[in-house]
Amino acid sequence: MTISPVQPRAGRFRPLGIEEVTLEGGFWGQRQELTHSAVIPHVEHWIEKTGWAANFDRAAAGTLPAGRSGREFSDSEVYKLLEGMAWEIGRTGDQHLEARFQALSARVAAAQESDGYLNTMFGRPGQQPRYSDLEWGHELYCFGHLIQAGVARARCYGEDLLVRTAVAAAEHVCREFGAPDDPRICGHPEIETALAELSRVTGDTKYLRQAQQFIERRGRGALGKIFFGQEYFQDDTPVRTATTLRGHAVRALYLSSGAADVAIDTGDDELLTAVSNQLTSALARRTYLTGGMGAHHEGEAFGGDFVLPPDRSYSETCAGIASVQLNHRLLLATGDPVHADAIERTLYNVIAAAVAQDGRSFFYTNTLYQRVAGDSPDQEEPSPRAASSVRAAWFDVSCCPTNLTRTLASLGAYVATADDDGLQVHQYMPGTVETTLAGGRRVTLRIETDYPYAGSVRIHVVQAPEDWRLSLRVPAWAQGTRIWWGSHEPVSADPGSFHIPGTGESQTGLAAGDTVTVELPVAPRWTWADPRVDAVRTHVAVECGPVVMALESTDLPAEMVRQGVSDVSGVRADPRYPLRGEGKTVYVPVRAHRDTDRAWPYAPTATPEPGESDDVLFIPLIPYHRWGNRGPATMRVWLPEVPAASAQLRQRHTEASP
Amino acid sequence: MTISPVQPRAGRFRPLGIEEVTLEGGFWGQRQELTHSAVIPHVEHWIEKTGWAANFDRAAAGTLPAGRSGREFSDSEVYKLLEGMAWEIGRTGDQHLEARFQALSARVAAAQESDGYLNTMFGRPGQQPRYSDLEWGHELYCFGHLIQAGVARARCYGEDLLVRTAVAAAEHVCREFGAPDDPRICGHPEIETALAELSRVTGDTKYLRQAQQFIERRGRGALGKIFFGQEYFQDDTPVRTATTLRGHAVRALYLSSGAADVAIDTGDDELLTAVSNQLTSALARRTYLTGGMGAHHEGEAFGGDFVLPPDRSYSETCAGIASVQLNHRLLLATGDPVHADAIERTLYNVIAAAVAQDGRSFFYTNTLYQRVAGDSPDQEEPSPRAASSVRAAWFDVSCCPTNLTRTLASLGAYVATADDDGLQVHQYMPGTVETTLAGGRRVTLRIETDYPYAGSVRIHVVQAPEDWRLSLRVPAWAQGTRIWWGSHEPVSADPGSFHIPGTGESQTGLAAGDTVTVELPVAPRWTWADPRVDAVRTHVAVECGPVVMALESTDLPAEMVRQGVSDVSGVRADPRYPLRGEGKTVYVPVRAHRDTDRAWPYAPTATPEPGESDDVLFIPLIPYHRWGNRGPATMRVWLPEVPAASAQLRQRHTEASP
Repeated sequence: MTISPVQPRAGRFRPLGIEEVTLEGGFWGQRQELTHSAVIPHVEHWIEKTGWAANFDRAAAGTLPAGRSGREFSDSEVYKLLEGMAWEIGRTGDQHLEARFQALSARVAAAQESDGYLNTMFGRPGQQPRYSDLEWGHELYCFGHLIQAGVARARCYGEDLLVRTAVAAAEHVCREFGAPDDPRICGHPEIETALAELSRVTGDTKYLRQAQQFIERRGRGALGKIFFGQEYFQDDTPVRTATTLRGHAVRALYLSSGAADVAIDTGDDELLTAVSNQLTSALARRTYLTGGMGAHHEGEAFGGDFVLPPDRSYSETCAGIASVQLNHRLLLATGDPVHADAIERTLYNVIAAAVAQDGRSFFYTNTLYQRVAGDSPDQEEPSPRAASSVRAAWFDVSCCPTNLTRTLASLGAYVATADDDGLQVHQYMPGTVETTLAGGRRVTLRIETDYPYAGSVRIHVVQAPEDWRLSLRVPAWAQGTRIWWGSHEPVSADPGSFHIPGTGESQTGLAAGDTVTVELPVAPRWTWADPRVDAVRTHVAVECGPVVMALESTDLPAEMVRQGVSDVSGVRADPRYPLRGEGKTVYVPVRAHRDTDRAWPYAPTATPEPGESDDVLFIPLIPYHRWGNRGPATMRVWLPEVPAASAQLRQRHTEASP
Repeated sequence: MTISPVQPRAGRFRPLGIEEVTLEGGFWGQRQELTHSAVIPHVEHWIEKTGWAANFDRAAAGTLPAGRSGREFSDSEVYKLLEGMAWEIGRTGDQHLEARFQALSARVAAAQESDGYLNTMFGRPGQQPRYSDLEWGHELYCFGHLIQAGVARARCYGEDLLVRTAVAAAEHVCREFGAPDDPRICGHPEIETALAELSRVTGDTKYLRQAQQFIERRGRGALGKIFFGQEYFQDDTPVRTATTLRGHAVRALYLSSGAADVAIDTGDDELLTAVSNQLTSALARRTYLTGGMGAHHEGEAFGGDFVLPPDRSYSETCAGIASVQLNHRLLLATGDPVHADAIERTLYNVIAAAVAQDGRSFFYTNTLYQRVAGDSPDQEEPSPRAASSVRAAWFDVSCCPTNLTRTLASLGAYVATADDDGLQVHQYMPGTVETTLAGGRRVTLRIETDYPYAGSVRIHVVQAPEDWRLSLRVPAWAQGTRIWWGSHEPVSADPGSFHIPGTGESQTGLAAGDTVTVELPVAPRWTWADPRVDAVRTHVAVECGPVVMALESTDLPAEMVRQGVSDVSGVRADPRYPLRGEGKTVYVPVRAHRDTDRAWPYAPTATPEPGESDDVLFIPLIPYHRWGNRGPATMRVWLPEVPAASAQLRQRHTEASP
């Protein structure tokens, strides 16, 4: 059994697990270390401090509801942490962590009732009855996370108390919700993908059938009417007839992941196509440059097509995590590199941004334009999820920190896949990939790179069979990528999947001792949005490889301040000039714009903007994921352009038109 | 006693009541007729259909909480309707309406408890105790609307059952909340302005002192912490130290109205200045072109400075009503015509927009960009407040329709004011203004105009004393206004207050038989936003006089459709060409832009936009307030510009700089 979060019964690629892919240093290896040393202990601290773990003790002691703390979904945070710990133990074998995991598991297991039901919020005298509030109660959602923790533990370790607890919960769910004419579903999808994975890990198809039932029941109005409308929990339209992702972003993406799992394992191509089309549409029209999803604070929801305002963009951290999960499922199912592109973008610009450099504070929402430098959140008290320009230690709704632990601990599983012919490298991270292809053919690769801050990736073939194929993802942004190996001259590789020629088609493929070098063009580049994203009309952004760059007010040079500009709002980019620098140090050509206060902000003339006669300055940008680590500041990703530049760069030449 | 919603004890101007100002036809006279014939009967129908009126019967019968319907504030909708009916009876003397008013009043009064408390949601066995949920219970808010209904009735009619009910409620509030060390306030301000007005109508200063206490208590954290943060109900900062309007827009504006009332009646200049500065700041930085306030759907709240996205702009109808109330108070207090400008803009572009042409459906939110043609709401069922491109008959939270009845019925009170010297005309509506100035000097004016669709306003002096002064508001947008009277040559009048020379300074002023003609430049004009409103960067709007214009997809000409543009998103304005037409029929010069679908909406080149070689077409705009009356459609107020036009119109000439 592979130790990976997703193990479909079918599909184009087989996932490689965290026992097969080891990250060693580099951008993500360092973040895994931080997860180990800081994030997981921090989350353990907070689930005790808030009393969310102690809720299980109270349940076991029979004293609930007295003293219960946290919202209706707080049990799930303990489960997400357990899942993160399970992966981290699987990755590192840390025995101290193992002891803490077992202790916490035991507290959870002790709270389980004899019929498998387990929730600290419902069902006792003085509490609401079980399943009396399917819209908001999150009971099946909590079970889903318990089961996912059990699946992770089963894969990393084998059967133990937590696995038995999860299975007992799943058995309860199937008994309670299994009747064919039962229309009930949970307001927050999550149980679907969890049951599908439990079916994969146990081989018991009853769980898959239950997941399938939940998928098929949704979209038929089983849930009560709520203020946000039925699309909030995707109960507006059946999954197989919906055309795009909508409503609460995390709900939509978890549901789609579960639907993909069911479709793949049952061979339901219609359902898989529906989910794929919905994601394709959302990527084309409802996704931020960072890969972030969810434009509305209200309902934490997808906006309409091209409604992607940078100020107050919601882009919840958990929606980024969920998007990675969904794209990973579709990458495995279809092999389409667009999904690996989406994973990469989301990892570098949502997941990496969410965690502070010290691993002890987090963004819940990931705005692209911070207009006002926020207060420093009180790091001793939970914050509301509302955005600040500084990360918070914990939240009243604290899904994101716990969700990050499981994502970062299992990150190796997203690096590479295999099929009958060979190996596919999707994400470029330094480390080792070691697996056995069909027929017992062993392959070992060592990957060295400073990516994303440098574009060079060296893949050393340590061990290889005679007949195999190596495929490398060339990201969609990476026009001009060059690849060479052995004594071959460098070849240009178009975005998509690049198959090293010769390998897999002859016996003269790559052999032990060979090195493949990929040179990705990570020099800074300008990026423009579709004009239908009106909110960033005549704005421009800067990207370096997969990394979105940002201007933070902390970096405004004295020369700008002398020109009267002390905030990011006074900067105009002039993309007719070239960007300078590389890696973490990039300079953008700008001109200063001084705002004028008026009693009424609308006027019969357009406000003058910088033009050719204003100085061009090159000012520093930083990777977006690093912003907010130097105290409260303003920040923006999309920079307004000098109007003359906008006109010149958008000139339509009739002679060039069809 | 003047029959007007606001009667401050002091201030620059004295309000004229609805017995002194009669609207006769024209834009607003027609809307008053519609209010009488359609809106009020429609609202009467719905408060019965929903059971919100029957809640009072159940209270009187002692059967509550069984059968109670509606949210915690549904009582207030009955009170707002009663206030609207009171004004309408005062305006028209309609005896059928009087009978219905008395019947409904009796049902409300019958539910009042012996100590004056009255609320169908709280205090009975099986309900939450009185005042156990000050954050969300809305009990004082409901009392506020009951008292305002009582004030309206007292002014229009004199004492009756409803007035006694309101006074008994106010007495209860003062007993319950009057202790100097009681920190309690209501989560939704409204009681403050209601008590201040009751103090004015009864002469009992106890109510004013209670209002003052509520104002002074706020901003000190008396209310519990909520998800939206304490600024949601303005409990973050004391009223007299806050610097701008923030949080829930209706709450902020009602609170400010109450604070203004208290400040004026107690001579508290510091408090009045604080409120005035907050409104000034909000008008400069947090107000839509329509006058609408509230940028966020989440929390129905003001956004930060210049956060004014046109798509999903919230701009709640009730916030428009509340802004009119607050600006009216500050106009009376200070005489600053900026407040009459704000009232005019809000009346024509929020209040007028909210009501359908048939008076039977309403916008709750007033978006400036409808990207997708909404479904037609079910006119037999309440809608959630969420926006559609078609108005809805009723809402689960149905404050706006009821609030509109009281505003439209009392609209005459916003037209003109008086001071010791004479009369000030602030709003140009056809009708009669008739009042007695100090010393028994009678003045009667007849106003004739087709404004806002025509710019000519004729003010006939029917009766006038020898010594008086007539002042006319010249709106801020009305550069080039000309005014003439008697045999005088036309003079140019700058925006602000124009005093007819001679009147008030000599005895050769305007006399009976004279006519003053005001010629306001209502030809269509281009309008640009402050560049800090990034959401409409390089967009332009069109206004005609006080009326904001809009492009509705219904009006896209066949020629655009032939060019591949069937939605408002494919239109680019070219403001280097002149606008054409006038009144309701305006044509805007545009070029067609065809959108291109891509798998990822961000690219290393800017999308070509229309340029000089593309055809210029003149396509029709309609007044924004008329949109959505012809079935589902897309609509936008701000049109993206042709980039070459943006550059040319924003060119900064160094030689012209200081």
